[in-house]
Amino acid sequence: VAFYQAGGVAFALFARASLAEDANVSATGSGFSGFTLAHNVASEEAVAATLREAVAAGGRLVRAGEKAPWGGFRGYFADPDGFLWEVCFNPFFPLDEDGFVRLPA
Amino acid sequence: VAFYQAGGVAFALFARASLAEDANVSATGSGFSGFTLAHNVASEEAVAATLREAVAAGGRLVRAGEKAPWGGFRGYFADPDGFLWEVCFNPFFPLDEDGFVRLPA
Repeated sequence: VAFYQAGGVAFALFARASLAEDANVSATGSGFSGFTLAHNVASEEAVAATLREAVAAGGRLVRAGEKAPWGGFRGYFADPDGFLWEVCFNPFFPLDEDGFVRLPA
Repeated sequence: VAFYQAGGVAFALFARASLAEDANVSATGSGFSGFTLAHNVASEEAVAATLREAVAAGGRLVRAGEKAPWGGFRGYFADPDGFLWEVCFNPFFPLDEDGFVRLPA
């Protein structure tokens, strides 16, 4: 297991079979997992650059960066394990000096 | 969409079909999703109490609280949408005064 501190949250990577066993469920499953991970960045240009970086590192482009109906700009890639990551510029959700999202009050 | 601040991370709830559409993938999928959400608490007793609270609120018990091989104590429930939540006492990962996990340096 690998743990990463992400603000007040720990992000942990497990082997799929180990996680299913710990949760007491079958590891069988396919298709849409019902969740995505999002990485918010500071500009539309940063969305495009981050997606290029992800693809260069072995990710698969799932949605090229483009305007979202709600006024932001985002794209998606799948990592080598198939997890979906959104790369997003959200002009309504500020980032603090460490790059963490701070929801408006 | 509902957003919740969780330390430096925002936790967001979407309708499944909307999230799949935004990610440009099919919403079809079944079985193990490959991820779980964990809520760390301060004691073994708090694990049992939190699992009881989750079940009373409509969750389904998936693993009753018990010792884990790595020395902690944890159980799992599924929320009404089927997402798996671990409730965990980890004596090696301290919680700060707000209850957020702080990985040891």
